[in-house]
Amino acid sequence: MTAPATSPFDDIRRLITTMPGPDEAAVAAVRQRDGQLTKPAGSLGRLEWLVEWLAAWQAKATPTADRPLVCVFAGSHGVTERGVSAFPASVNRQMLENFSAGGAAINQICASLGLGFKVFDLAIDMPTGDIVVEPAMDEKACVATMAFGMEAIAGGTDLLAIGELGIGNTTIAAAIYAALYGGEPAHWVGRGSGVDEEGMTRKIAAVEGALAHHRDHLKDPLDVLRRLGGREIAAMAGAILAARLQRIPVILDGYVATAAAAILHAIHPATIDHCIAGHLSAEGAHLEVLERLGKIPLLALGMHLGEGSGAALAMGIVKTAATVHRDMATFSQAGVSERLP
Amino acid sequence: MTAPATSPFDDIRRLITTMPGPDEAAVAAVRQRDGQLTKPAGSLGRLEWLVEWLAAWQAKATPTADRPLVCVFAGSHGVTERGVSAFPASVNRQMLENFSAGGAAINQICASLGLGFKVFDLAIDMPTGDIVVEPAMDEKACVATMAFGMEAIAGGTDLLAIGELGIGNTTIAAAIYAALYGGEPAHWVGRGSGVDEEGMTRKIAAVEGALAHHRDHLKDPLDVLRRLGGREIAAMAGAILAARLQRIPVILDGYVATAAAAILHAIHPATIDHCIAGHLSAEGAHLEVLERLGKIPLLALGMHLGEGSGAALAMGIVKTAATVHRDMATFSQAGVSERLP
Repeated sequence: MTAPATSPFDDIRRLITTMPGPDEAAVAAVRQRDGQLTKPAGSLGRLEWLVEWLAAWQAKATPTADRPLVCVFAGSHGVTERGVSAFPASVNRQMLENFSAGGAAINQICASLGLGFKVFDLAIDMPTGDIVVEPAMDEKACVATMAFGMEAIAGGTDLLAIGELGIGNTTIAAAIYAALYGGEPAHWVGRGSGVDEEGMTRKIAAVEGALAHHRDHLKDPLDVLRRLGGREIAAMAGAILAARLQRIPVILDGYVATAAAAILHAIHPATIDHCIAGHLSAEGAHLEVLERLGKIPLLALGMHLGEGSGAALAMGIVKTAATVHRDMATFSQAGVSERLP
Repeated sequence: MTAPATSPFDDIRRLITTMPGPDEAAVAAVRQRDGQLTKPAGSLGRLEWLVEWLAAWQAKATPTADRPLVCVFAGSHGVTERGVSAFPASVNRQMLENFSAGGAAINQICASLGLGFKVFDLAIDMPTGDIVVEPAMDEKACVATMAFGMEAIAGGTDLLAIGELGIGNTTIAAAIYAALYGGEPAHWVGRGSGVDEEGMTRKIAAVEGALAHHRDHLKDPLDVLRRLGGREIAAMAGAILAARLQRIPVILDGYVATAAAAILHAIHPATIDHCIAGHLSAEGAHLEVLERLGKIPLLALGMHLGEGSGAALAMGIVKTAATVHRDMATFSQAGVSERLP
């Protein structure tokens, strides 16, 4: 007798079966208090839902957003050699330095809203394989990068926003969506950071080429991740899983960050029940992806920057929602009549 | 020869002809700087537009949101005697006290986002006339209340959010929209703070009755305001005008606050060019009203509380947009490549 073949992915699959579900008692406690607050029932709309969502996944009757953290994962992609982006790959490192110096958009958003910010350099000077002719990563590297993402978020936060940096990674995201959802590759390709017509042609060709090259090996979502993905996608997927296990609700950023969630959703839809879509990106077919994931974006501001920027803005709304629920007076505290006598 | 008949409204009409327009030079300066910031062109979407809007109306090349202020105007309505609300009119004073004690939703939103907050009591214990059988106010009282609203916001702010409190004032707003835009009165009536079926029937009857009673005197939008409106609507209209003259951009709250803007828009559409819609309310036909005013709401969270709550949440986004524009590094400052070599 031989032992069954094992794969580095087995641990990930096993992990997914052990995830905690929502805490319904915490949700019930939130609803009860919400009904006593000095406002008409339901009048805070989605803010009320956000507090219930926090409670469900934090398992706290009084949910918090006291240590909100934006985590940005930065990766580098072999496919950029094909001229799929308006920016050169050298911008990756330059932007990491801009993050460190506090000069990027995400730095200002976090400062303005009182959010913690961490950025993780995933071997930014070593591009992954060019997905048109080879897998981005082997299984072992993919799992190791997921594990890195899992450890990255450990401790110190009660609400996580995940985002990314990586020239060329809207090409990567488009390839992942095309593999998961089918249809013409071009359908999933957008302008990214603002590529011109010729660049768009090259970008579509790259996604078509990648899908054709890997076509016989795209049934398992984790194979889609390691063949067509990138390190920031793998790390974000790991961070989403670790957050679930640690009962940290997650706010997804835009088109690229959502690809990490889409991989997990394809393995098992409930894997991303603790995630909300921070915003609707202007990139490509983001709305269609979110519909497939069953996520209604909190904001729709035409943004398409990445860097966790949309998720961070949404985090400001979630933070406020938690404060409102915690600090409002009840009808009896304030001596306000609840209804017509 | 006799002097032409004068009206207390003449001063308002005269004021509207003297309003400043947008400062195109300030907008151009914002656009120039925006093009140098370390991000792809246009990637911050509506945030970029918001900064241009601030610049246009503040007439500042580097617009600010350093002293954001939420102003809530509270009025009382004779029509509430007809059972049009789920709450008794006594809630007006109770909620004013709740504001003072810091217990209402708007208090927490302002605290969370670092916004100033002022509330103005417009004779809350003296209801205006029951619009079904008489005008809410006479011309003199209407103009005096507009003047009160104009003075209320004087000094101390560079960005204004306006909201309201007033049991029964979604009935008032519905009557105003029906008078301005026509159609069945019922089309403009929503659930307000959560009125039941019987209350809805009474609410629709009240709006129909008011429209019928005043039908021969609703051509002038200022007559619509004083006959069908209320003190908080008049004060908000005054605040919007004063803000324009003082170059303070305005964020409108939901269904009732928008009625004040709709009155001014009906007099002359450009009167509210310095206003944005903070959010789409879940109340009634708010989207249709905003489309008529040419306003795309910044947020759509299913809220319908009033108190300036939606405008205040939106103000958090505007504040962040201004910070991002002011504090981001440029490509040359950060040593980031602007495009493919």
